[in-house]
Amino acid sequence: MKFSRMFIPTTKETPSDATLPSHQYLIRGGFISQSGAGLYDFLPLGKIVLDKIRAVVKDEMDKSGANEMLCSFVTPMSFWEESGRNLTMGSELLRFKDRKSGEYVLSPTNEESVVNMVKNRITSYKNLPLNLYHINTKFRDEARPRFGLMRGREFLMKDAYSFHASQECLIKEFKNMEEAYKRVYTRLGLDFRIVDADSGAIGGSGSKEFMVLANSGEDTIVICPDCDYGANIEAAIRAKKVVPNWQETTNTPIAQEKVLTQGMKTIEEVSNFLSTSQAQSIKAVMKKAVYEDKTEVVVFFVRGNDELEETKACNAVDALELVDASEEEIKESGLVAGYCGPFGLPEAVTFVIDEELKDEVGLVCGANEEDYHFTGTDLSTLKDAKYFDLVAVQEGDTCSCCGGKLEYTKGIEAGHIFQLGSKYSSAMDATFLDENGKAKPFEMGCYGIGVSRLVAAVIEQNHDDKGAIWTKETAPFLVDVIVSNAKKDEELEAGLKIYEDLKALGIETIIDDRTKERFGFKMSDFELIGFPYAVVVGKRLSEGFVEIIDRKTLEKEDVEVSRVTQVLFEKLKA
Amino acid sequence: MKFSRMFIPTTKETPSDATLPSHQYLIRGGFISQSGAGLYDFLPLGKIVLDKIRAVVKDEMDKSGANEMLCSFVTPMSFWEESGRNLTMGSELLRFKDRKSGEYVLSPTNEESVVNMVKNRITSYKNLPLNLYHINTKFRDEARPRFGLMRGREFLMKDAYSFHASQECLIKEFKNMEEAYKRVYTRLGLDFRIVDADSGAIGGSGSKEFMVLANSGEDTIVICPDCDYGANIEAAIRAKKVVPNWQETTNTPIAQEKVLTQGMKTIEEVSNFLSTSQAQSIKAVMKKAVYEDKTEVVVFFVRGNDELEETKACNAVDALELVDASEEEIKESGLVAGYCGPFGLPEAVTFVIDEELKDEVGLVCGANEEDYHFTGTDLSTLKDAKYFDLVAVQEGDTCSCCGGKLEYTKGIEAGHIFQLGSKYSSAMDATFLDENGKAKPFEMGCYGIGVSRLVAAVIEQNHDDKGAIWTKETAPFLVDVIVSNAKKDEELEAGLKIYEDLKALGIETIIDDRTKERFGFKMSDFELIGFPYAVVVGKRLSEGFVEIIDRKTLEKEDVEVSRVTQVLFEKLKA
Repeated sequence: MKFSRMFIPTTKETPSDATLPSHQYLIRGGFISQSGAGLYDFLPLGKIVLDKIRAVVKDEMDKSGANEMLCSFVTPMSFWEESGRNLTMGSELLRFKDRKSGEYVLSPTNEESVVNMVKNRITSYKNLPLNLYHINTKFRDEARPRFGLMRGREFLMKDAYSFHASQECLIKEFKNMEEAYKRVYTRLGLDFRIVDADSGAIGGSGSKEFMVLANSGEDTIVICPDCDYGANIEAAIRAKKVVPNWQETTNTPIAQEKVLTQGMKTIEEVSNFLSTSQAQSIKAVMKKAVYEDKTEVVVFFVRGNDELEETKACNAVDALELVDASEEEIKESGLVAGYCGPFGLPEAVTFVIDEELKDEVGLVCGANEEDYHFTGTDLSTLKDAKYFDLVAVQEGDTCSCCGGKLEYTKGIEAGHIFQLGSKYSSAMDATFLDENGKAKPFEMGCYGIGVSRLVAAVIEQNHDDKGAIWTKETAPFLVDVIVSNAKKDEELEAGLKIYEDLKALGIETIIDDRTKERFGFKMSDFELIGFPYAVVVGKRLSEGFVEIIDRKTLEKEDVEVSRVTQVLFEKLKA
Repeated sequence: MKFSRMFIPTTKETPSDATLPSHQYLIRGGFISQSGAGLYDFLPLGKIVLDKIRAVVKDEMDKSGANEMLCSFVTPMSFWEESGRNLTMGSELLRFKDRKSGEYVLSPTNEESVVNMVKNRITSYKNLPLNLYHINTKFRDEARPRFGLMRGREFLMKDAYSFHASQECLIKEFKNMEEAYKRVYTRLGLDFRIVDADSGAIGGSGSKEFMVLANSGEDTIVICPDCDYGANIEAAIRAKKVVPNWQETTNTPIAQEKVLTQGMKTIEEVSNFLSTSQAQSIKAVMKKAVYEDKTEVVVFFVRGNDELEETKACNAVDALELVDASEEEIKESGLVAGYCGPFGLPEAVTFVIDEELKDEVGLVCGANEEDYHFTGTDLSTLKDAKYFDLVAVQEGDTCSCCGGKLEYTKGIEAGHIFQLGSKYSSAMDATFLDENGKAKPFEMGCYGIGVSRLVAAVIEQNHDDKGAIWTKETAPFLVDVIVSNAKKDEELEAGLKIYEDLKALGIETIIDDRTKERFGFKMSDFELIGFPYAVVVGKRLSEGFVEIIDRKTLEKEDVEVSRVTQVLFEKLKA
């Protein structure tokens, strides 16, 4: 391809809302163009990158045995009513009416579509398993679309849906997909980590995320440096924190006492006053839980020096989401802010205790009465209390697998695989006949890759202060032949010869043959766009030399014209 | 690919609304599945066909020098307000609001998007011409979605948009695209015709349609058997009809007379009564013209034995559409139904006369008075009358190019190319600086191919009463190796060997290795789905023979196992 014949509108201007390198360089390098809030056009260079990533994903999905299909992007609301997600998905699900007032949805995902596709068409266990995938436009009406392709509203996703006669078969395919995904991210040249994840609105019993490691990642992931353990903070677990209990430190029997703690509303104040450690107290976090049909104030209890992990908390009370409760709502629920504890709560109030506190004794907690706390409590006396894992794992906590010290890192969610079980098939009454002729709902899995997000993720992981640095599998072209002064016939001719020779070797090459742009401008474009290599045809051509530049290291190397194609071929093979 | 591992849900049931062969066979053959009104999912076989057609289109567009990009499918309403099409496109333009009440559109086409993309990025004539295309989902909220993929609401289209500094350059690219389109349809193995067309809602100065010839086509096209002339009925022209005039037949001078024609409201009644031919009278057609801001009753006058072509009529009065006028509306406009003529019409009434009637004398027409007609009229006396081509060309009319007798045929519109001129660039203020440094709006062309519609068009042109018959470039697989009884090891092994050998030759092959289906079922599937060839591995295997079946002719041929791959290779090369 020739620069002069391709629409590559690079610019020095950075959009004011572009904080991430990928957002800046994709716009400035002429890869994408914003058409509206969270809406992007792919310009020719961006389209090539998108297609390359898409091709790798397709290839590995095909190799894994999945069948490619294509669901309609617009889907009838009736599908979403069947699954119940018309109620649970909130405002992200974009709904509209057609000219006949029929209700439709712009698909944000396609579990319902695919169940509808398979229902009544696969009727026997003999035709299972089956894995159907497509690579198609999605729309999520994000409250705050931002970060360019990283969190747009319209985006390209690969989503696969598998159908099974048994959970064992589902688990086998889940592993098959995990392997296929590993191959995808490896081929794309990405540094990634597979982590345990929360299943979110998709639901199901188990899920893993594929995180592209990058400082700008929106997700905090917990990893163990000593073993393979990794998890999204929302799903991360740790070995139980070892905290000396009341008896060990005070050597006195447990006896619940109400003590005056006037005006002391924080863990810190109370601990200082009672000369105990924060770990020896119970922290109460009050939230308003939102359900399909109601809201209510709920209380979560965690150890004084732990933090509540909101996704875990939300799952523990099976709510759609948790939001902050107002002072008034707290009061109306009969709760006393600053003095809330698990003993003597109003009966109607739902509360959950972190499972690490189960049967703990001697802890300090609020007495549910202004200005009073309890000391010497015994949680084993609380009958019917519900215990769940509620805490956010912290750096330095102990790995539950190997005893190592857990660390935080940042990642971009680029893939997510789920064991759905029969959540959707049961809701939509999609069944098959098993070996005994009995109708059973399909066991299902689903598997997503954010194809357009990967375009951005590659840059988040691979860039410098001059621009993007594409990996070999994702680069729009591998080599940029820069003709220093294209008005000079000998330079242009030599450049064209190298360009044709590289193409003949199957190396994707672009030639910067623009006559009106100066050399410095062409170099800036090369660095901004981020082709892996440039060949500069310039000053030393008369001596028989051109220069090869490695975009990653920016190292320059003079090479004889006669050897340049071979040198590049070797570099690209490496 | 193995049948046993692919989701191919064939069925004997024809959907009740499927009247066209393509609709029936695409559903029955397991290519597509309906998800809603005018919404279809592509199942695995259908996806392969769609991709093959898409690949041919992409390849020829790339070869033509166009740049591939990808516009967002959801576009801001502001784009459509700039071009004015928010007002002109009516209910087909699907509009919706997002969570913040922002107004958006599901793109039915992308002139506005691409002008927005190029605006301020191409600023000089030096960077022109440029042709940008994408292959993307479109949505048109059809009043009556029908015929399966032929007239769906969501569909896949290739649309290209070119930008030029001059009309000469635009015309050059228009021809370049015409050649590229010819190559596309030729490669797909289609019998097609390029015809002159009306530009419709897209607008512009000239357009051509690519018609796939098929009896079921929705479009009537006029062709000349003696020359290359072809046109959509909406745009077809003919040599002026030669009709003997009043003077030649009556040999009396022209003198307008009002004659009593009591109760005679039709051309036939009046002609019989006056003993003139219908060609010697003027027919009035009254319609209600719909404009952006008003409606009005307008009158079109054509020769008594001609028919009004509504698209031509609509263009002649520059209306959005023409609808039937009620008796009341006609009366309110001061018109007298059955007795309407161009002389003495109420002043406020807009009327247009067919250009073949210009300066005609001696014709009979209504006197705009109940029960009266005029004879001996002279149209040259009508000052300020507007003349346009208004008639529908009829079979047997004379070709204006060569004098041949025109014929009707039916076609499916599968492509449409337009010279838009500066319609959109002017409206959206998209300009470049010309050689003299003067800002000028881009000259534009646009070029569409209905990619998903082509999937149906191939079948409309290629089918029999058993099923589809794919052309070589469009077939999901070229050869279906049918293992007659896959429970017999020797048959399955021989089938697999042939399957592997064919694949090794690069021939796309599927093997029907299903153990629970009988031979008759597999044969029916072969005929229904329409792979070009089958190889039956069955009875005569023990003698060293298999059978090759040609789907098109259904001819069978016994071939030695050792020769089968070579025989098929030769057939497919032909």
